[in-house]
Amino acid sequence: MKQMDMIYEGKAKKVYATDDPNCVIVDYKDDATAFNGQKKGTIVGKGAINNRMTNYLMKVLEEKGVPTHFVEELDDRRTVVKRVSIIPLEVIIRNKAAGSFSKRLGIPEGTELKCSTLEFSYKDDDLGDPLINSYMAKAIGAATQEEIDTITKYAFTVNDVLKDFFAQIGIELIDFKLEFGKTSDGQIVLADEISPDTCRYWDMKTGKHLDKDTFRRDLGDPEGAYQEVFKRMGFGE
Amino acid sequence: MKQMDMIYEGKAKKVYATDDPNCVIVDYKDDATAFNGQKKGTIVGKGAINNRMTNYLMKVLEEKGVPTHFVEELDDRRTVVKRVSIIPLEVIIRNKAAGSFSKRLGIPEGTELKCSTLEFSYKDDDLGDPLINSYMAKAIGAATQEEIDTITKYAFTVNDVLKDFFAQIGIELIDFKLEFGKTSDGQIVLADEISPDTCRYWDMKTGKHLDKDTFRRDLGDPEGAYQEVFKRMGFGE
Ligand SMILES: Nc1ncnc2c1ncn2[C@@H]1O[C@H](COP(=O)(O)OP(=O)(O)OP(=O)(O)O)[C@@H](O)[C@H]1O
Ligand SMILES: Nc1ncnc2c1ncn2[C@@H]1O[C@H](COP(=O)(O)OP(=O)(O)OP(=O)(O)O)[C@@H](O)[C@H]1O
Ligand SMILES: [Mg+2]
Ligand SMILES: [Mg+2]
Repeated sequence: MKQMDMIYEGKAKKVYATDDPNCVIVDYKDDATAFNGQKKGTIVGKGAINNRMTNYLMKVLEEKGVPTHFVEELDDRRTVVKRVSIIPLEVIIRNKAAGSFSKRLGIPEGTELKCSTLEFSYKDDDLGDPLINSYMAKAIGAATQEEIDTITKYAFTVNDVLKDFFAQIGIELIDFKLEFGKTSDGQIVLADEISPDTCRYWDMKTGKHLDKDTFRRDLGDPEGAYQEVFKRMGFGE
Repeated sequence: MKQMDMIYEGKAKKVYATDDPNCVIVDYKDDATAFNGQKKGTIVGKGAINNRMTNYLMKVLEEKGVPTHFVEELDDRRTVVKRVSIIPLEVIIRNKAAGSFSKRLGIPEGTELKCSTLEFSYKDDDLGDPLINSYMAKAIGAATQEEIDTITKYAFTVNDVLKDFFAQIGIELIDFKLEFGKTSDGQIVLADEISPDTCRYWDMKTGKHLDKDTFRRDLGDPEGAYQEVFKRMGFGE
C-alpha cells in the first residue's frame, strides 16, 4: 500500500490517497480542538492512542456484526481504511445526560435517561453541526430511510458492545459520536474513529472524566486521561 | 356550561375552568407575540378569526378520523374544549423549507423538500422550545413511544387534510405547529389551535404571506392577511 497525496486535513486526522482507489490512509494527529475549532491545543501522544484504540474497537465491533472501514494498522499513527463517502450525519448515542443534551434540555450531567437516545447532527461546520431528526435528514437528502435504518441498528449495537466493554474496565460509557460511510460497492460501514475524542468516559468509581472533556473544560492532565483509558484497555504495559 | 376561574393566561389565549371538570373554555385574544414573547403587539380581530377557523378545521379533521378537543363554540372568541393534559411537544410538520428549518440548515425559504418532515420541539419557554427527537422525548419522559406513534400518525393526516383544504382556496400550506393532549380517559386528541398564528400560509399565485410572518417580519397589514384567509374559507361574507 503506497501512501500518496493528502486529500484532506481535518482537525484530528489527515487522510491520504493510496495506490488502491478503494483505500485511504488515516494519520492521527496530537491536535486537539473543541467548540467547533474555536479552542485549539495539543494532547501529546493522543494521535497514537486514538489510532490504536480505534482499530482495537473496530475489530471487536466487526466480530459483533458491525462492518467497519478498518483494513490494516500501518504504525503508531497510521491505518489503512476503506475509502468511503461519509454520510453527513454525526450519529450520537447517549446513555446518560451530558454535554449539549444537558444544555439543550436543562438537565444536569449524569442524569439517568428513561432510554438510551440516538441523535443526528448534520455535519456542516458553518452551521455548527446542528441537531436534526431523521425526517429532516431525508428531506435534505443527507440520507435515505434505508441508510438511516441501517445506521440506527449498527449504532445501537455499537452502544451495547462498547458499554459492556468499558464497564469491564471500570469505565462508564456516557455518550459517543459515530460516523458512517458508504463504500464504492454501496455497503454502509462504521468509519472515522472511536476514541476519548469522540466518547465520554467516566471512571465508574470516582466519576473522573477520562476523555476530551479534560481538554474542553481545562480539568487538567488530558494526557493522563487518554493514557489511563489506553492502559485499562491493555495497551502500553 | 358555566365559565369559572381563569386557570391559565397564555400569550394568545386565556383558559377558564367550567362546572364540567372535563371541559375548559378557551378565550382567544388579539394579542400577538413572536420570538418567544420578545416582540409584542396586537392584531385587531385576530382572536375571533382564530377561534372560528380553529373550530372549523377541527370539525373537518374529526370527520377525517383525527380526534380533537373541540366541543362547542360559545361565541366569537370563546369555545368549550375537552380539558386535556398537554403533551409537552410542539409538533411541527413542514412541506417546504421556511423559518427555523431554513435558518438551522442554511436552506432558502420555499425550497422543496424530498419529503414532508415532522419535528418535535420540547415545550419549555425558558429553554426556548428546543428541537428534540423522539428518542429524546422518551428519554426525558415527555412522551411514550405509543403516544409518539399516535401523534405522528395524526399529524401526517392533519397535513394531508389541510394541504388539500387550503390548496382549494389558493393557499399553499408551508408548515404548521400542532399540540396534542390526553383526556381524562387517556385518549390522545388534537388540542390548542390551527390558525395563521400557528401555520405558514402562502398565496399560491403571488407567494404573499397570509399568516403571522406578516407580524413577525413587519410585512404590513397583518389584519388584512388574517381576514383574507378567513374570507377564502367562506367566513364573514
Ligand atoms: N473511511 C473513510 N473514508 C473517507 N473519509 C473518512 C473515512 N473515515 C473518516 N473520514 C473522514 O476523514 C476526516 C477525518 O479528519 P478529522 O476527524 O480530523 O476531521 P474533522 O476536523 O473532525 O472534520 P469533519 O469531520 O467535520 O470533516 C473526517 O472528515 C471524516 O469524516
Ligand atoms: N384542550 C386543552 N386543555 C388544556 N389546555 C389546553 C388545551 N388546548 C390548549 N391548551 C393550552 O392552553 C394554553 C393556550 O394558551 P396560549 O396558546 O396563549 O399559550 P402560549 O402563550 O402559546 O404558551 P404555551 O403554549 O407555551 O403554554 C397553552 O398552554 C396550550 O397548550
Ligand atoms: Mg472528526
Ligand atoms: Mg400557544
